Formats: sequence, structure tokens, C-alpha cells
Amino acid sequence: MSKIVHGGNVEEISRKYKINSEEIVDFSANINPSGLNKNVKNAMINALDKIEKYPDISYFNLKKSISDYENIDIKNLVLGNGAAEVIFNIIRGLKPRKVLLPAPTFSEYEEAVLSIDGSIEYYHLKEEDNFKLNNELINSLNESIDMIFICNPNNPTGVLTKNTFIEKLAKRGLETKTTIVIDESFLDFLNSEEEYTSKDLLQKYENIIIIKSLTKFFAMPGIRIGYGISKNEEFITLIKKVTVPWTVNVVASEGTIQALKEEDYIRHSIEYVEKEKNYLYNNLKQIKNIKVFKPSVNFIMFKILNNLDLKEEMMKHSILIRSCSNYEGLNSSFYRIAVRTREENEKIITALNYSLVI
Amino acid sequence: MSKIVHGGNVEEISRKYKINSEEIVDFSANINPSGLNKNVKNAMINALDKIEKYPDISYFNLKKSISDYENIDIKNLVLGNGAAEVIFNIIRGLKPRKVLLPAPTFSEYEEAVLSIDGSIEYYHLKEEDNFKLNNELINSLNESIDMIFICNPNNPTGVLTKNTFIEKLAKRGLETKTTIVIDESFLDFLNSEEEYTSKDLLQKYENIIIIKSLTKFFAMPGIRIGYGISKNEEFITLIKKVTVPWTVNVVASEGTIQALKEEDYIRHSIEYVEKEKNYLYNNLKQIKNIKVFKPSVNFIMFKILNNLDLKEEMMKHSILIRSCSNYEGLNSSFYRIAVRTREENEKIITALNYSLVI
Repeated sequence: MSKIVHGGNVEEISRKYKINSEEIVDFSANINPSGLNKNVKNAMINALDKIEKYPDISYFNLKKSISDYENIDIKNLVLGNGAAEVIFNIIRGLKPRKVLLPAPTFSEYEEAVLSIDGSIEYYHLKEEDNFKLNNELINSLNESIDMIFICNPNNPTGVLTKNTFIEKLAKRGLETKTTIVIDESFLDFLNSEEEYTSKDLLQKYENIIIIKSLTKFFAMPGIRIGYGISKNEEFITLIKKVTVPWTVNVVASEGTIQALKEEDYIRHSIEYVEKEKNYLYNNLKQIKNIKVFKPSVNFIMFKILNNLDLKEEMMKHSILIRSCSNYEGLNSSFYRIAVRTREENEKIITALNYSLVI
Repeated sequence: MSKIVHGGNVEEISRKYKINSEEIVDFSANINPSGLNKNVKNAMINALDKIEKYPDISYFNLKKSISDYENIDIKNLVLGNGAAEVIFNIIRGLKPRKVLLPAPTFSEYEEAVLSIDGSIEYYHLKEEDNFKLNNELINSLNESIDMIFICNPNNPTGVLTKNTFIEKLAKRGLETKTTIVIDESFLDFLNSEEEYTSKDLLQKYENIIIIKSLTKFFAMPGIRIGYGISKNEEFITLIKKVTVPWTVNVVASEGTIQALKEEDYIRHSIEYVEKEKNYLYNNLKQIKNIKVFKPSVNFIMFKILNNLDLKEEMMKHSILIRSCSNYEGLNSSFYRIAVRTREENEKIITALNYSLVI
């Protein structure tokens, strides 16, 4: 559907390069390398016995499960067919005329705004600051900006933003009547998220909406689930008004309810990704002709210093990586790779050394 | 999400009446009584091995499968997360200011139009004509009507409309610049659909869009899949612009590809529904205090002539039926029931006799 290039396009790549899709090691999509939890998969198999019926249109059990997990009230929750739909429904419901996007960031915000013919203003983050958010961004909010998206941690740069900064942004947003949308889709990968999540700001700042995607952390992007949280009743009403009935399928619903119970899987995944992130980061830094940006969760952005189509080079090793050339504010020197298993991480390090150093 | 009451709400009913949802016989949702095909279920179980990856964003295999089944070009196809999303995306993409709805009809058209703050005009079909479409409806199209929805066969009345009538409507629509949306979600249940489908009109009338839902016929509404067909390139472009990426999940996609191959299941289902529809219709007609409307596919509408809350009465028998009181143009005397298995059909006939005749 999308005109925009995304990661995770293994089937298309497999057709283009005539490689069996099973053989491709996919570093382009930021999915938990632990893979789909077995109990979650079993819950999904059992859920197939229920697909002869429509999903419960009120999603009572699913909403209860998420609200317990997030420690929020059910009435503060909106569901979506993936975080992508939550993004679109926020835009469709609140209808911002102008949206401020820090660049580079996740491309779906732009696509959603363009789908309602809204206009976009970019705030270009600086490479010399490692693309960190700064006070100038806060000051650039004004009455003409109806909404701003902050991806935290940011995809593709990996930059984490403390909630003390978000609070300053939200405070300014109250003055300028700007809605602050915080996409915390990757925050579950973080060991201690207290300093970063904006959840505790929701009560005080009714101009904040948080987006969550469970599919990255629970390795199930193929089944689609996502949600939004806000204490602003008007926002919730407007978003529900544009939400299609039965938007979450039964398999995603039952799988999610099981996933949120899997405490061991959650703890193990966080520890494993932390360890492999450090392994991959430390090894990437040692490769010549490459500048690596400090990662925070399960993906790493880097810049290559020689003139090479690294995506094509990696395909020779059946490795799929994400070129960042289509991100506003980046160019074809930038790439993003996911943190995978040790074996796969070793494979990409070897391949990168081969391609970049010779 | 929806404010509108729908059929198939077994989970909610089960909570309200404190009946185990397994024990409820659901006549409120119009789903193929043959149930989910085993090969389709197996394809879905296998698809769970692929959900660690995003769906193929171009849906190459799924679109190829549907275009072969429908004998149309891939470029004339748009996909949705259920027919409900296709309806919403047509409205979001084409942005009609005023939509004409024959009443009674499926409530999602109204909900979709209201979600973009469009306005609705009703054309009230007459009970004395058994709610058939007529030439007055065609004449009521004018320049102010941007779009009209025709559900064929119509939910909940069961009225089938010949494509010769649709052609007259489409011809008038070309003059008045009205888009004709034909929802053929239940047409697959018909033994010979040549006289009814508008597919052959698409080439000549670029103001037509057809909506299809496979989940009713293949008994899989819990997994969500639907699509739209039009030869109008501008329509397709506008609809794709508002479509969320990865909108169809991998399980629905792989299940659909398998379902469209199941020729024996398709043939058997059509024959079985035809037989049970006749059985149910003939038995309903013999019950006192009831007026039955001639059905065409897998559901039957009737009107009761005494003052009774028949939905509540049927719940005493653990039978869930659809009250039509919230359909524009109907009232609390009208009910809709699905065609189910012989055993279930016998059960509802007995229960209706008990409730209506005493």
C-alpha cells in the first residue's frame, strides 16, 4: 500500500534477488531475536477455533489485559490493527492541519499526515549532536503547530529522550495548543524505562498521547496489534469515532493476552537484547570506515565513510539491512541494522568487515 | 469501538446473561454454517510460523490469488482489514459530502460516512414492496449525491438486485457524478451469480466500486479480510493513499490464499446453505404471528405480529438472534436470523413456535 520504503520486506527481496526467503537473514526489521514465545503461539493456535465468530466488538478481555499491564484505566485506551493504524487513527481523529516532525524519524507519521492532506514541518536534528532532541525543538513549537510526534527511543537513530524533556515539551504544548504524540513502541526493550516513559505525565498533561506496539517486542508483526493511551477524553472519543469496528483480529487479541503474562520471556528478552546490542555495538565500532551511533534498544544506526551501496553488498551474503536513504534528514551513507542472535550478529560483523575494509 | 449494535456479539452476550459463550447458538451473525475449512485452518497454523516477519507490504501472493479468483487485474484491487475497513477506506479516500443510503441496509455505511462528518440522505424502501429497489431510487440521484451504497443481496432484507438495475443506476450516476458502491459480501453464497454481480459492469462504468468480504462465506470473520474492486484508477489511487500499511495480517492472507483453492468446500457450502435456507424459510412461514421475507442467501428477515421482545425470549433458549430495531427504516418487530445447520435450524424453529404461538 505504502509508497514509502520499509524494513522487513523479505518476500519482496526474495522475489527480486531470487533467493529463498528462508535463507535471508533479516537485519532490516527491528524484531525481538528471541522469536515468538511458544505459549503465545499455542494461544494463537487455540484462537483459530474462535475465528468463526466476529471478535468481541468491545474487546473486553484484551482491553482488561492491556490496562492491567500498563496500569491504566480501560477508558484511556484505544486499540489498533498494529501501531501503524493507531498513528493513522490519531491523525484521522484529531485532524491536525500542521504537524512538526523531528528528522530523521519513523516514516509512518509523515504518511499518515499526508493521507489527510495535512502539512508537515521538519525540525532537522543535527548529526554533530548525534541527532539528540534539544531545547530549540521545544522553542520551535508555536500556535500553528497542531501536533508533534516524538519517537522514544527514536527509530532509526536509537536516541532516547528523558521524560523530563518530554514534560518541558508538553508544558510548551499546552501554551501553543499542540498535541504531543509519544511513540514508545520500542521502550519495552529497555531494562529500566522509568526515566523515559511519559506514562506518568498523562495525568498532568492531557495534550499527550502515547503509542505502543507489542509486535516488535513479542516478535509478532505479522499478526498486527497496537494501542494508544491518553487521559484526554475528547481525544479518545475522536479516535474511536474513526476506528473501524473489529479492527483487532481474534488471533492477535488472544496472542496478546497470553504474551502479557509471559514474565520470564519478557525478562529474558530484555537481558538478551541488552547483551547482544552491546556485542554488536562494540564489534561495529571496531570496523574501519564506519561511524556507529550509540544504540539504546534492539537496533543500531551507522554511517559508512566510503562510497558503497552497502545494502547491495550485504545481499551478496543473503543479509538484508535497512538503507536509511529515504529518511528525511539522512542520506544513502546511513544504515540501520537490528540486534539479532549471537550467530547472526557474528555473521553480519564478518560480512561488514569483508565489504567495508577491503 | 462502534456505537452501532451488530450481530455476532457472543462474548458480550455471554457476559451479560452469564451463559457460557460455548452454549450460545449464534443466529445473529451471517456466517457459513459449514464452519472453517480444515485446509484453511492448517494453512493458518502454518502461517503462524511466519508472523515473526511483517506481512509482505505489496501483498503480491494474496493479490494474485484474489485476482485469479475474481478474474480481474491486480491493479483494480484494494485490500482491507475486513470489508468494514474497505467501506471506511472508500469513504476516507473519496470523501463524499453527501451519501444516499437505501433503508434498511447494513449500518457500517452510515458509520463510515459519519466518521468523516459526511451527511446522509435516506431513501426509504417500502415494506409493501418487500423492500425492493425501484426506479424512484434511480430518479432520486442528483448532483448533490456524491455516492450511493447498494448492498446486494441486501443485509438484512435479503433482497437481490439484478445487475440490469445496477446498470441503470450507474448510467444515471455518470450523469449526476455519483459513485456507485456495490457491496457483494454475500453474493458468493448464491448458486448462479451472473445475473446479479456488477463485475461485468466495471469496464463500462468507472463510477462503480465493488466490495467483497470473504470472511462470511469462508466462516472466518475473526481473522479479518476484505477487498474492493474498481476499474477507476483515480479511485484506486485515492483509496490506497488512506490505507494503513500491513493492514492484512499474515494469517488472514495465507488462509485466504488457501480458501480460494477449496472448490469442493465452495460448492458444498452453496448447496448446503441453499437447502437449509429453504428448510428454514418453509418452516418459518408455517409459524403463526410472523411475516417472513423471501431470503436469497444465508440469512432471513422476518417481522413478528405480536408485541414481544423476541431477542430476550430466544435468550431463554440460549439462542442469539439479531433485532433489527436499530436499522433505519425498520423497528423492533423485525428480526434477522442466519441460516445454520439442520440441527440448529430445528432448534430455533421449535423455540420460535414455543415463544410466538402460545
